[in-house]
Amino acid sequence: MSEKKYLILAEEFSHDPHYGKTMRGVLRYRRESVVAILDTKRAGASEDGVPVVGTVDEGMRYEPNTALVGVVTQGGHFPGDWQDLLKSSVRQGLDVENGLHVRLHDIPGLPELARERGVELRDLREPPGDLSTATGANLEVDATIVLTVGSDCAIGKMTATCELDLEARNRGLRSVFVPTGQTGIAIAGWGISVDAVVSDFLAGAAERLVVEGGERGDLLWVEGQGAILHPIYSGVTVGLMHGSAPNLYVLCHEVGRTVTEGDPTASPIVSLKELVDLHERMSLKLRPAKVACISLNTSEVSEEEARIAIEEAEAETGLAADDPVRFGAGKLLEAVLNAGP
Amino acid sequence: MSEKKYLILAEEFSHDPHYGKTMRGVLRYRRESVVAILDTKRAGASEDGVPVVGTVDEGMRYEPNTALVGVVTQGGHFPGDWQDLLKSSVRQGLDVENGLHVRLHDIPGLPELARERGVELRDLREPPGDLSTATGANLEVDATIVLTVGSDCAIGKMTATCELDLEARNRGLRSVFVPTGQTGIAIAGWGISVDAVVSDFLAGAAERLVVEGGERGDLLWVEGQGAILHPIYSGVTVGLMHGSAPNLYVLCHEVGRTVTEGDPTASPIVSLKELVDLHERMSLKLRPAKVACISLNTSEVSEEEARIAIEEAEAETGLAADDPVRFGAGKLLEAVLNAGP
Repeated sequence: MSEKKYLILAEEFSHDPHYGKTMRGVLRYRRESVVAILDTKRAGASEDGVPVVGTVDEGMRYEPNTALVGVVTQGGHFPGDWQDLLKSSVRQGLDVENGLHVRLHDIPGLPELARERGVELRDLREPPGDLSTATGANLEVDATIVLTVGSDCAIGKMTATCELDLEARNRGLRSVFVPTGQTGIAIAGWGISVDAVVSDFLAGAAERLVVEGGERGDLLWVEGQGAILHPIYSGVTVGLMHGSAPNLYVLCHEVGRTVTEGDPTASPIVSLKELVDLHERMSLKLRPAKVACISLNTSEVSEEEARIAIEEAEAETGLAADDPVRFGAGKLLEAVLNAGP
Repeated sequence: MSEKKYLILAEEFSHDPHYGKTMRGVLRYRRESVVAILDTKRAGASEDGVPVVGTVDEGMRYEPNTALVGVVTQGGHFPGDWQDLLKSSVRQGLDVENGLHVRLHDIPGLPELARERGVELRDLREPPGDLSTATGANLEVDATIVLTVGSDCAIGKMTATCELDLEARNRGLRSVFVPTGQTGIAIAGWGISVDAVVSDFLAGAAERLVVEGGERGDLLWVEGQGAILHPIYSGVTVGLMHGSAPNLYVLCHEVGRTVTEGDPTASPIVSLKELVDLHERMSLKLRPAKVACISLNTSEVSEEEARIAIEEAEAETGLAADDPVRFGAGKLLEAVLNAGP
């Protein structure tokens, strides 16, 4: 594939911390692919060393080939000024990528303009139309596949996955982040939102992701979804576990969390030791996978409490544990590299 | 709900054993709801004591309120003579139910005719449009919920479910078969094909089924799908396990089967003992479920081998085992009733 050079469309990204999370994710984890950021309010400034421009025309000086929607707009909609931005991008010959619910293909006039200019509009959340059931091709991928799993959803699996991938790339490994949810997809510019796939094709979608990942590198970090015992999302979790055929798991947990979130029943979270055992026994019989290490999200506790929690997790499971955001991903990466496959 | 009285549309059902499987399932498990069968080739005869008629008009003598498509047509299509049959049914004021892939709503002229006559066209395979994520309402259902699970897909889970429900109804219990796949839905006339649901709503669909089941009776037999370790369908299995919130499982297995079917990787099937343990540990934490008994499909072995296999399964698991088709469902039903919840 040709190398992505992003002009991130981040109009008014500074007005709210959540609003610009896609842009921030891309800047943190795909910095090398970003050539410019568009925000009329901050034109002339720079963000993490990336020039901020006021118009698409001005952004073209930095030779982008793709405009990326870098914000989370209200309700996923594109107000009028956004539609103008997207049209300017297409007129300049840029492909456009969008991870929001509302599709680029539904913006009046945009698909026609894109056809005329010969550029692609990529609605990243929309599952491919030609998905099917898994075939076993996942077992043929020539790469080490590592899947993040967790004690709950919304616990930092995507962040842990990105941190491990970034650390591996910084060490010169052919490492690939394999995104399975909308934010990850917007960050990486590819992937499948597996929870939007028809249940029958869940493992098939995960399989396709690792097959594509195998063409991109040889150490794949698959973003996990949900949790094996989550009352609402466990189906997605297990379909992804089997379809992505991991060699290893990284088990993610948030220190202090005792019941599932975003779940009206607030189901108790079981022990790390039980989760390690369950994930290993629920592995594909033809690809038994081990938990390589424990990734803790300690953002809600003090640094001292974090260090104690890490020690406790190591004592409980006999595995390396760390918080890759707070203390760096090196220790967990080494645990994975030493674990196999 | 008003009581269903079916005129089963089974034109040429006798020409091939597979062709009439919906009709046969309905006759075996919903005999009390069938008033007549339509087949021009056998008009005047009877099938399992049900009169066979040659036209819809003639069938009206038996006072049906619903016409049910009772066959599996080539590719799920409706050839011209079938379209005439369906139109005659609607003209006579019958609702129409169809479990095939091709929708009644796509037959030219039929929806208009149905509107005119004030009857319903029910395409049973189409998931409801208003599904959402699970809410916890599954834990509030005032009924004993029993889910069939299995060592593989296509192993007889639907049949075991129907046999147990039939036996329970024969004993006067307010028992309900809760269908989750197309054949079961066509047999029961309601249900959701859970594998056709978007992954995010899998548990939500299963929850809706047991909530509806709870309005129909107080002993619910939920048709399981796939298998917890099936490389392709495990996501559906686990979503259904958590969304249907069973109190008990019936674990189904086919004697002699050692690897998964319909799966190009032919994955080894683990022991019954391991499956019992895994299902119990994978239960909802707020609804721990036990395996009540083992349902064996012994159709591929002799009667003597079947009896030996049943003894072996009992010795291995410490649970009652039987083949409900070959030897009757009484023993398994008693195991379920004695097990709790």
